[in-house]
Amino acid sequence: MNKFLVLQTDFGTSDGAVSAMYGVALSVEPTLRLFDLTHDIPEYNIWEGAYRLYQTISYWPEGTVFVSVVDPGVGSERRSIVAKTASNQYIVTPDNGTLTQIKKHIGIVEARLIDEEVNRLPHSGESYTFHGRDVYAFTGARLSAGVILFQEVGPEVSVDSIVELSVPEASLSQGKVTGNIDILDVRFGNLWTNIERELFRELQIEYGDSFEVLIENDQRQVYKNIMTFGRSFADSHLGEPLLYVNSLDNIGVALNQGSFAKAYHIQSGINWKITIRKVPKIIYN
Amino acid sequence: MNKFLVLQTDFGTSDGAVSAMYGVALSVEPTLRLFDLTHDIPEYNIWEGAYRLYQTISYWPEGTVFVSVVDPGVGSERRSIVAKTASNQYIVTPDNGTLTQIKKHIGIVEARLIDEEVNRLPHSGESYTFHGRDVYAFTGARLSAGVILFQEVGPEVSVDSIVELSVPEASLSQGKVTGNIDILDVRFGNLWTNIERELFRELQIEYGDSFEVLIENDQRQVYKNIMTFGRSFADSHLGEPLLYVNSLDNIGVALNQGSFAKAYHIQSGINWKITIRKVPKIIYN
Amino acid sequence: MNKFLVLQTDFGTSDGAVSAMYGVALSVEPTLRLFDLTHDIPEYNIWEGAYRLYQTISYWPEGTVFVSVVDPGVGSERRSIVAKTASNQYIVTPDNGTLTQIKKHIGIVEARLIDEEVNRLPHSGESYTFHGRDVYAFTGARLSAGVILFQEVGPEVSVDSIVELSVPEASLSQGKVTGNIDILDVRFGNLWTNIERELFRELQIEYGDSFEVLIENDQRQVYKNIMTFGRSFADSHLGEPLLYVNSLDNIGVALNQGSFAKAYHIQSGINWKITIRKVPKIIYN
Repeated sequence: MNKFLVLQTDFGTSDGAVSAMYGVALSVEPTLRLFDLTHDIPEYNIWEGAYRLYQTISYWPEGTVFVSVVDPGVGSERRSIVAKTASNQYIVTPDNGTLTQIKKHIGIVEARLIDEEVNRLPHSGESYTFHGRDVYAFTGARLSAGVILFQEVGPEVSVDSIVELSVPEASLSQGKVTGNIDILDVRFGNLWTNIERELFRELQIEYGDSFEVLIENDQRQVYKNIMTFGRSFADSHLGEPLLYVNSLDNIGVALNQGSFAKAYHIQSGINWKITIRKVPKIIYN
Repeated sequence: MNKFLVLQTDFGTSDGAVSAMYGVALSVEPTLRLFDLTHDIPEYNIWEGAYRLYQTISYWPEGTVFVSVVDPGVGSERRSIVAKTASNQYIVTPDNGTLTQIKKHIGIVEARLIDEEVNRLPHSGESYTFHGRDVYAFTGARLSAGVILFQEVGPEVSVDSIVELSVPEASLSQGKVTGNIDILDVRFGNLWTNIERELFRELQIEYGDSFEVLIENDQRQVYKNIMTFGRSFADSHLGEPLLYVNSLDNIGVALNQGSFAKAYHIQSGINWKITIRKVPKIIYN
Repeated sequence: MNKFLVLQTDFGTSDGAVSAMYGVALSVEPTLRLFDLTHDIPEYNIWEGAYRLYQTISYWPEGTVFVSVVDPGVGSERRSIVAKTASNQYIVTPDNGTLTQIKKHIGIVEARLIDEEVNRLPHSGESYTFHGRDVYAFTGARLSAGVILFQEVGPEVSVDSIVELSVPEASLSQGKVTGNIDILDVRFGNLWTNIERELFRELQIEYGDSFEVLIENDQRQVYKNIMTFGRSFADSHLGEPLLYVNSLDNIGVALNQGSFAKAYHIQSGINWKITIRKVPKIIYN
């Protein structure tokens, strides 16, 4: 453990909830170093929590402990677990799908159920609604600080049993790549697809090539137009759409200095499909 | 002192104001550890600042110094003080009601006026509008770092003289509990009342019991319906209202995975009353 | 170097981008101390990034390294540089105008081009869109940690060559001061002008004096009314407008506990002019 504890929640930072989690962690061990992933996961949106975790953790050192609390089932029978990843990091979380992307892309080597008889803030009373503070931050801090070993979190559970959300797969056929809009790069309005660069490459592409991009929500066509594939936004004109490789090595869709998502009222999820096919380059005479 | 300095303001974090406070504190003593409570207190809302402070500080270790700046009277004759709590924490703040809940529920054992001749950022010039940086962060940092002792903050003032906002009390009569909506759990839209669990208990309640909840804004009825008392949100169906014990051990009202406040246009404050009475359990055949 | 690394971006904190920058920096050197200036610079708004930097850095200790990433030209030929200020701080940034105010008001003594052959996160792959993480945070961390010396950032570039945005100057003539609304104090809706206190003083003013304030957007008059010059907001009645000296020692316009900007639909920039002239004090009988 490196004594780094990184918190992610859907609590926002407008009240004292996250700060109470910090206080609990520092009461366990004052030398812990606390950081935030984000606290702006949309309320109850497990998928987005899972995605942000996956997007971020590989940039943190080995031995870092993450606490992720997007927990619509707080107080229900959902399990609370700690997972150890193949890259030697730990994630403390309700077992509700938050580990979907980590399990699939990074790998989980061991998982343990949190034994709340031991790993729960003393005197946390009759409140059953703030496990983020009373169970997850407390346990994460104890693990990160070395107060407990991973084995002392609680009994082992099988990695197979960890809840996974369904993840659509991108595919290639007849010269078209079809995938999903996995998530938005909210701030800039870019679309992040589940189409990996390697799959896209099979279309025999080069920077500057033109593609027809079709976006559908269920059966409805939302967008259908030609754009080029650029190395970065600067390869298109201001306000022009483009395909690019995002920071997760997947294909993204952007409007240079505009918001593609706002411009065309596009959201993300399994009902948002994207189809890309190469078209002849347009030559303007 | 533990060298923890925790900041709360109504400044937001969209400009450099909070960062300047950090810089001032670290210029006093580079080894201080700085944290945030929240900077999203609605502008000038002393009541909410007081509440968030009360909601949070008991989760922080002894010896922590808090700086809370919600200061509509900056530049006026309002006093600047440091209060020492019964749990051995310190709060640096304008004396404008910010300490209301702390004084009532936790206790203040001693208070001192900030002597700005000594405890003001050198060369902070002719600006009279940023005491958060020039007086409060500076003094909090010096106190936390041990540069000054509590006695060196300035002359003692009587605890009795500390400004308190009026706090309505919940009460029980004729099988009804009546109280106020003290504040919203903004992110999730839950209502937090001033009805303590112990008072509510006097209605002879059990989890699963049904209650009629009446919410009034001044004389106007805003909501009147039956809901059950659950241990947590998971005890109700999705979208169903419920009563529960919140993380401050008070009674809350929630809509499971919805926003009760948005659904019924409910706000908080002394004009928002809530009345709860037990009703026979509804049995659906 | 003091091992402080302060980050500013226009990324927001709703996804994992800023946290990935933190992770990269701490992977370089786990003992670095990381802080935020703000991550809420409006997207692509270089001017506001430049202003917030200038507003804040003088409150931080010598030897602090700042990373500022507002980078609409990511992936283009714009230069990436590190500037050393006259007050012995370092700023890592795209050379796109972000250093305008620093260069003008604080001074830059030396600047170096970032050599991305050396100073780029290893294995940062084929993504060309996240230099904030792969180049700026990485280089800032290495510099702050002493992994590289300033000389090892890359080849020196002339200070003269650093890109500057055009900065309008305030001026005095015929008993009027004319300037610009440089930026808004967003949270509170105050206007921050480019009129320095010293220039304003030449109108022979005292606290309590009355002034006619004219605000124009291009040729259109937006506001024209009388207000007084106060030491702080508390010198005016609730809801009353006033002139005051802001925390940068420039003249500001406020509505006591209201938002001047919202009240009159005022924004900032070179097309927003303000003219102030002294008028006889109004005496109410």
